[in-house]
Amino acid sequence: MIVVMKPGASEEDIQHVVQLVQEYGLKENVIRGTDRTVIAAIGDKRSVDKGAIENAPMVEKVMPILAPYKMASTEVKKERSQIKIGPKQFPVGGRKIAMIAGPCAVENEDQIFRIAEAVRQAGGIGLRGGAYKPRTSPYSFQGLQEEGLKLLAEARKRTDLAIVTEVISVETVDQVCEYTDVLQIGARNMQHYALLEAVGKADKPVLLKRGLSSTLDEWLLAAEYIINAGNPNVILCERGIRTYEDYVRNTLPLAAVPALQARTHLPVLVDPSHGTGHAYLVPPMCRAAIAAGADGLIVECHNDPEHALSDGAQSITPQALLTLMGKLKRIAEAIGKEA
Amino acid sequence: MIVVMKPGASEEDIQHVVQLVQEYGLKENVIRGTDRTVIAAIGDKRSVDKGAIENAPMVEKVMPILAPYKMASTEVKKERSQIKIGPKQFPVGGRKIAMIAGPCAVENEDQIFRIAEAVRQAGGIGLRGGAYKPRTSPYSFQGLQEEGLKLLAEARKRTDLAIVTEVISVETVDQVCEYTDVLQIGARNMQHYALLEAVGKADKPVLLKRGLSSTLDEWLLAAEYIINAGNPNVILCERGIRTYEDYVRNTLPLAAVPALQARTHLPVLVDPSHGTGHAYLVPPMCRAAIAAGADGLIVECHNDPEHALSDGAQSITPQALLTLMGKLKRIAEAIGKEA
Amino acid sequence: MIVVMKPGASEEDIQHVVQLVQEYGLKENVIRGTDRTVIAAIGDKRSVDKGAIENAPMVEKVMPILAPYKMASTEVKKERSQIKIGPKQFPVGGRKIAMIAGPCAVENEDQIFRIAEAVRQAGGIGLRGGAYKPRTSPYSFQGLQEEGLKLLAEARKRTDLAIVTEVISVETVDQVCEYTDVLQIGARNMQHYALLEAVGKADKPVLLKRGLSSTLDEWLLAAEYIINAGNPNVILCERGIRTYEDYVRNTLPLAAVPALQARTHLPVLVDPSHGTGHAYLVPPMCRAAIAAGADGLIVECHNDPEHALSDGAQSITPQALLTLMGKLKRIAEAIGKEA
Amino acid sequence: MIVVMKPGASEEDIQHVVQLVQEYGLKENVIRGTDRTVIAAIGDKRSVDKGAIENAPMVEKVMPILAPYKMASTEVKKERSQIKIGPKQFPVGGRKIAMIAGPCAVENEDQIFRIAEAVRQAGGIGLRGGAYKPRTSPYSFQGLQEEGLKLLAEARKRTDLAIVTEVISVETVDQVCEYTDVLQIGARNMQHYALLEAVGKADKPVLLKRGLSSTLDEWLLAAEYIINAGNPNVILCERGIRTYEDYVRNTLPLAAVPALQARTHLPVLVDPSHGTGHAYLVPPMCRAAIAAGADGLIVECHNDPEHALSDGAQSITPQALLTLMGKLKRIAEAIGKEA
Repeated sequence: MIVVMKPGASEEDIQHVVQLVQEYGLKENVIRGTDRTVIAAIGDKRSVDKGAIENAPMVEKVMPILAPYKMASTEVKKERSQIKIGPKQFPVGGRKIAMIAGPCAVENEDQIFRIAEAVRQAGGIGLRGGAYKPRTSPYSFQGLQEEGLKLLAEARKRTDLAIVTEVISVETVDQVCEYTDVLQIGARNMQHYALLEAVGKADKPVLLKRGLSSTLDEWLLAAEYIINAGNPNVILCERGIRTYEDYVRNTLPLAAVPALQARTHLPVLVDPSHGTGHAYLVPPMCRAAIAAGADGLIVECHNDPEHALSDGAQSITPQALLTLMGKLKRIAEAIGKEA
Repeated sequence: MIVVMKPGASEEDIQHVVQLVQEYGLKENVIRGTDRTVIAAIGDKRSVDKGAIENAPMVEKVMPILAPYKMASTEVKKERSQIKIGPKQFPVGGRKIAMIAGPCAVENEDQIFRIAEAVRQAGGIGLRGGAYKPRTSPYSFQGLQEEGLKLLAEARKRTDLAIVTEVISVETVDQVCEYTDVLQIGARNMQHYALLEAVGKADKPVLLKRGLSSTLDEWLLAAEYIINAGNPNVILCERGIRTYEDYVRNTLPLAAVPALQARTHLPVLVDPSHGTGHAYLVPPMCRAAIAAGADGLIVECHNDPEHALSDGAQSITPQALLTLMGKLKRIAEAIGKEA
Repeated sequence: MIVVMKPGASEEDIQHVVQLVQEYGLKENVIRGTDRTVIAAIGDKRSVDKGAIENAPMVEKVMPILAPYKMASTEVKKERSQIKIGPKQFPVGGRKIAMIAGPCAVENEDQIFRIAEAVRQAGGIGLRGGAYKPRTSPYSFQGLQEEGLKLLAEARKRTDLAIVTEVISVETVDQVCEYTDVLQIGARNMQHYALLEAVGKADKPVLLKRGLSSTLDEWLLAAEYIINAGNPNVILCERGIRTYEDYVRNTLPLAAVPALQARTHLPVLVDPSHGTGHAYLVPPMCRAAIAAGADGLIVECHNDPEHALSDGAQSITPQALLTLMGKLKRIAEAIGKEA
Repeated sequence: MIVVMKPGASEEDIQHVVQLVQEYGLKENVIRGTDRTVIAAIGDKRSVDKGAIENAPMVEKVMPILAPYKMASTEVKKERSQIKIGPKQFPVGGRKIAMIAGPCAVENEDQIFRIAEAVRQAGGIGLRGGAYKPRTSPYSFQGLQEEGLKLLAEARKRTDLAIVTEVISVETVDQVCEYTDVLQIGARNMQHYALLEAVGKADKPVLLKRGLSSTLDEWLLAAEYIINAGNPNVILCERGIRTYEDYVRNTLPLAAVPALQARTHLPVLVDPSHGTGHAYLVPPMCRAAIAAGADGLIVECHNDPEHALSDGAQSITPQALLTLMGKLKRIAEAIGKEA
């Protein structure tokens, strides 16, 4: 932590901050410049609220230096994590690109089996589909719930795809674990800490979506909650952030992929469906994500998007998925990977 | 809903959309302009995912017309809601400004009693204080939990202030109800729907903070979840949004106050502590919020901000609170209210 | 400047940075922590591009410490600036609130004289009105140009109001100076440096609007360009920033007012018309701006907003202005000022 | 334009809006729904300020339907534009990817010739380099000006690369035209309309960067200014937008590439240097941009980034450029293009 004093700070002001720094268990280092004095506070105490020092007289600002997460960090674990998912134990985070696709919501048997088969044929390794749906409006379709989970489990039996589905409450973690392979934490729940701790105690890998406007630090701290609770198998998923842009549902910042890879050993997927909100933007952004180095994709795919019960606008068809996969394969190869 | 067709859409394309509109239970109204055709779809069906129509051939965009919430809306209830809180049943939402103040977290008996007394003396009507703390880092102080709730209840007994505290999980709703007067839903939980439904079944008023980057529609839909579950006593609290601005923790958009008052009958408070993140900005933004027409304030106040266990940087002292209240009183009077 | 090294940086890496720091004319101060080494570089060299050091091996990040502006800063000039404008030499920046109002664009004689008279009667001290209009679309009304300036000068003769009008090109600075009292630099031109230098050589005060998404540093550096070119009479004007919010044209961050007052001695006005974009939000945000401590307001006012040639949606009527002024007077008094 | 009336609007209110719509030269179409009345106003009048109608009694909102630009639009010109640049008349906008690279600023003969040669060897088709530099601080290096232009012209003679350089004032347009091949309009000047009109009268292609926080509509309207002034040869360049993200200088929204291609026939380049601000993020985002379908790239490249006079942090080395080009070639092929 660097404490910058205001110009004109007296020796007494400086010593007051030195004392505060020491009270926080840190070692001070006073640097007297031409214009102002800076106090560097050394020591690894991530748990204290150092911002409080800002209240001391003549303090201008307090700047943290250390990343606030540990176990998710490349400082602690240098080799990249590989996380195996589904009946075939597909390794997410290796040379091979992971394509997970499926509808926003499980709607009925015919729909989910038809799409699952299409995903398998396209070379996907996972099937996504919501059984419990967090919906912005209480009047929207809330998902088939356990019935949906059963359909997903049946789809797995038919296709060997890994089942990825969202869990939205502590109470249903066990139930969702029973039927599926990967527990998805949605953007709205990224800082729902009780849920993070609950999936941290589960024995299934977790797909942790980025919160709507979260920073990388906040996101990696959410991963840290899960790892800290006992589950090291966290897959990050960039799904776009909220900005002023109005031609997209969210702005998809793909630089997050290499930026995360410099900070964490966890695998990073990208969700261009939520990341753009419009079907015509999904294939180009899937290609871009793979080119940027993402470990895989999660894509909304529906056999009849015009009648989808949710997220129809951003779902691509099985045919579009198939065409896309051919291009992704070549892009992956261009950067030394496979699809 | 307005469906805008692309230029060059054929009659067949138009009829296809007309049919979709009818399938959704809406009545179409086709308007043929010089450049393009527009289809207005009439009827109140808030639950369907109309975006799906965007997938139909030659559709350029789909624009909603109706606000998606009902019970929170001034369309349904024209007179402004007054919500009574605490032992004195102070009416939030009337002529009198509600000042709620207190520390970020309950730390110990001496701290909370001392601050409660200062809040009472300054003319506050509520005491805020966290017992269950949602913290960005798993390594930060997580609150005194039930012990903290007991201290808050004791502070109420001594001061008659209404106790406002955050509830962060479905499991603890009953416990928090037992000790306190107002259930706060924090920004991170604004779209934690299971929790919204749980407090919707509780018999205490709810203080619903705006999510970090939520729109007014999303926020009012969160209120709608609570009202829809049976609890009409929702108080909204603007606490700032995330933007690129770096001299504040959040950007506090006070225009939200009159904009909300045009859309909803629910009372609106403002939290300038989280809304700015720095103690020196809190008094001016408190004054501005009242001048903009807010029904009250919720402010972090700590007797020793330099040593606060959380949010020290944004806490004002009891003395600053007292001085502020004098000014707020005069500003309230300037716009025909009282403090 | 603080250079943070990556964990694992070797002594050679550190010495390489030390050498770079010295080449930049700064003095290094090496601080060896438990996890990583930090190099504080001391000395006031604001002109070099220190970010380049980020390219040195094993550098994690480079954090600046000093504000990049000087003459606009409270460090250099502690007493607040008062800038006198118009025939009556009204002091902007003192105890008395400055109200500047008028139409977006000068449209014709009748319109501008009628509005000028209304502004005078309401107690305004300045008349705003665009003669040269920077318009987003080449097909929009571009202003009456010199003819508009003449009408503004005539309105001044009739009312003694200070004339505030935008200047959009270096070529027209002299002409605009001839007819008016305050040169407005619009948000789009905040970083049009040739124009900043041109008004820096003019002998009229400058009203410098904040750029659409500028930081406080960028804004104060734009002021620094003007002061550095020879004109110390710069009035800042907050007019809202672009965010994801969709119920407003811009988000008006009033915390900028006290935040600026802590950083600069220049007066700060607020423009709630552009800052919200809707007439119904203008009066509450005017009140809030004054309560937050702004030195004055600039407001769009039109006698027939439904037919205004530009910005009709955000213009208030003369009657609304009059009512507003009564409230502003009382709010100003509440915080020890006058209106 | 769609005018949405508030619930409870009377027939008189509706007729008042009908009359306004007619006054604006549009044809009304009144649609009476269950909850509210909507008035669709038909006719192509892009120049009027329809927002003014928002002031009429009982109007809730006004929603535009038509894109505000014409000549830049795919509605007016369906085939994609190809714009030929430099001594070799390289076609930007075709199957072949355009790589333009070079330093932020021309610093001296040795630097620019060395980098130009490296760009040529890597397969670039253009050399970028600033002679007139718009700098945020008046104390920063402002460029070599005409001397820099001469060095660029000499570098062209040696390499046959197209010279791309920024023009920052109306006065220097002719001079810049004399020495270079493509006139760059920087992000800060995207709405500097006098400059847009000046380059619109020049006989060189224009590279128009996206403004810092501009929408696609604003950007395409800036292009429209140039085309409208007589110069159809506009190349768009996405360079990132300002968001809350702090690990990048800007957030680079690559979905803008396909979104623009659906709206305009103009070629689209991407600038990952300004779009990220950090050298380590530049190669992955170059790859992503090409995979998303961009027509080319503009990249900062410096032989000694640690000592660059500006933008050192985001400049890649000639060696990194060479390696990158090999990968870009394969990615281009994967999507049916060439590099």
